[in-house]
Amino acid sequence: MKKVIIALHPIEKGIPNYNELIESFEIVNYSLTTPEKFEIDMKLKPYNEAVAIFGSYPGFKPFNGLIDHKIIDSLPSNLEIIGLCSAGFDGYDLSYLKLKNIKLCNVPVNKLIAMDVADCALWHVLSGIRKFNSWDKYIKNDSLNNSNNNNNSHTLKIRDIVRNNYVIDSEKEKGFAFGHIYHGTSTRSSLTKKCLILGYGLIGKSVVDRMSVLGMEINVLVRDKSKYNDSRVNFYSSKLDSDILKASSGIDVIIICLPGGSETYHCVNKKILDNLNENSIIVNIGRGSCIDVEALRTAIESGKVSHVGLDVFDKEPVIENYYLDESYINENSNKFFTSTITPHLGSSTLDTLECATYECIKNIINGLNTGEYSNIVNT
Amino acid sequence: MKKVIIALHPIEKGIPNYNELIESFEIVNYSLTTPEKFEIDMKLKPYNEAVAIFGSYPGFKPFNGLIDHKIIDSLPSNLEIIGLCSAGFDGYDLSYLKLKNIKLCNVPVNKLIAMDVADCALWHVLSGIRKFNSWDKYIKNDSLNNSNNNNNSHTLKIRDIVRNNYVIDSEKEKGFAFGHIYHGTSTRSSLTKKCLILGYGLIGKSVVDRMSVLGMEINVLVRDKSKYNDSRVNFYSSKLDSDILKASSGIDVIIICLPGGSETYHCVNKKILDNLNENSIIVNIGRGSCIDVEALRTAIESGKVSHVGLDVFDKEPVIENYYLDESYINENSNKFFTSTITPHLGSSTLDTLECATYECIKNIINGLNTGEYSNIVNT
Repeated sequence: MKKVIIALHPIEKGIPNYNELIESFEIVNYSLTTPEKFEIDMKLKPYNEAVAIFGSYPGFKPFNGLIDHKIIDSLPSNLEIIGLCSAGFDGYDLSYLKLKNIKLCNVPVNKLIAMDVADCALWHVLSGIRKFNSWDKYIKNDSLNNSNNNNNSHTLKIRDIVRNNYVIDSEKEKGFAFGHIYHGTSTRSSLTKKCLILGYGLIGKSVVDRMSVLGMEINVLVRDKSKYNDSRVNFYSSKLDSDILKASSGIDVIIICLPGGSETYHCVNKKILDNLNENSIIVNIGRGSCIDVEALRTAIESGKVSHVGLDVFDKEPVIENYYLDESYINENSNKFFTSTITPHLGSSTLDTLECATYECIKNIINGLNTGEYSNIVNT
Repeated sequence: MKKVIIALHPIEKGIPNYNELIESFEIVNYSLTTPEKFEIDMKLKPYNEAVAIFGSYPGFKPFNGLIDHKIIDSLPSNLEIIGLCSAGFDGYDLSYLKLKNIKLCNVPVNKLIAMDVADCALWHVLSGIRKFNSWDKYIKNDSLNNSNNNNNSHTLKIRDIVRNNYVIDSEKEKGFAFGHIYHGTSTRSSLTKKCLILGYGLIGKSVVDRMSVLGMEINVLVRDKSKYNDSRVNFYSSKLDSDILKASSGIDVIIICLPGGSETYHCVNKKILDNLNENSIIVNIGRGSCIDVEALRTAIESGKVSHVGLDVFDKEPVIENYYLDESYINENSNKFFTSTITPHLGSSTLDTLECATYECIKNIINGLNTGEYSNIVNT
């Protein structure tokens, strides 16, 4: 009789080990609804025979809460492993899972996944520096609004409107609309910018590659700068307050590539934000908890920060309304604030999904066959 | 008495040679309206004394037509030079200017300008591959539409709607919304993509740098491939039909980095477009005339091309309405078409404007002082 694996989400049939999986194991799909229904269902065949749960990326997130004693007590009695495709595993009671002899395994970030996430960071950075996203939206809205009397848009007219209809500071001159002034603020070349990257894992390194090709000055904040060497990068140690000050002075772009957790909680705070250049850009593809949002809002109100590019959020999965209004003249700073928002898509490609699913399934198959599991996070 | 220079647009005061300019020359601002008024005004003092015209980027474009005999005959009789900040100089009757002994000088693309334009191409490419721009717009529209009953957006809900409310092909399964499926089409990682870059000037080279860091396979079409060597690039010769076929086979992303003119006219044609992979992306930061728009529309209708990223346009300055509707299910291919549109912003940064203005003014000062001009395009 085949051992039973519960799949909380359909397993991608495109993965190379899919046939190996279904030849040796019985895959039973199960959709999470409530913890109460889960407790009842897990007592029934074939779920009660399961030795593994494949969680894909969401795992038990559909329960919208902690994976606590009550849920863990409901798990099938012979369960050996819960396999997640994500690197993150917030919310699980790791020690109680260990007490029950259940291994929680993740898929650590690899180079492919890191490059996908870094591409997302790069898009947010370019959107922030050059406002391409805002121009695209402006043109399309303009086209919609003019659809009755004018079926075409016009590069020069649009640039002129954006250049000269928004001269909100009376000292600034109206002038030739080269497209370099977006609502009163001059656009500068990427290569004039100084960036600070927080985190130097595989994602941080892939972000360094991308900022380097844009010609930026690159500063990276790591735990211990003595461990790292890269001729393109100035390293600073996050454990030294003087280094944090130096690292953040005169910075135009911050890119957060850190995991969540207590060690990185609110690491982008008032102290760092106060040090930035005017019209700075904050991009977060790490975790929402890394930003002190109250300090960020103050920095936006004062004009220190004029663009945020967010793929992760403070109260994720909720996206705060504050960042969603693009055409926003700040009353205090008299400057335009822009944003780019993606719904946690950093690694959302078919390639990453298949790669992570393959790795997760490989670990489950190998573990069930040999008893040896990789990437156990509750050791 | 100082020699007179007519400035068709205000000269940026931030340039390093601004003081040198105003100490030695009298700068007279003049705004173009109609050729008829121009003819009359140029007979008046101080315009009739002018020895140079500074055209900035637009030059005589505000006249919306060719710079023909009639306009050239109106120019001040002692005029030596028309200085443009742009590399392009379409529309001028070069030989008639020469006959009148007037030099037309441009500012060729340099590395700074090339990097700005390449950043624009990169943004369009990332938007096309990963649909970040479309997700950003979707989230913000969703937030607007829900503003009365729901002040927040939600990453998982939005991904689920986009994943599963648009399963337009009944054979496709609904499933977990990882964010990798945008309206029925899977998003693939940049590093799985093959790109074809048309043109290998400074801009084309800067685009190669950027596509290389994304991990793409890079093919470049040049006049004569024997002249070039770059280990990251497969070169093909545009003069060989067999090379054009090979270069365009199985391509996912085309990036046009070519100037206008008869040699590049409609070089992206049906033959090349037919060779592309399904769901391809066309990005144009060169000149609108490089694309056969009828062939492109056919490729969009058939699903060959699912995204266009345009900074330049066929009937520029007019932007064709065809590309402006983002939420567009193609009736023939049953696929979503997306676009990103910027109003010829490739080099639109303060840095490029100042750099090109500086170079143009330097050439005018030096030429008026010594009689030796650089970058004469009507030799």
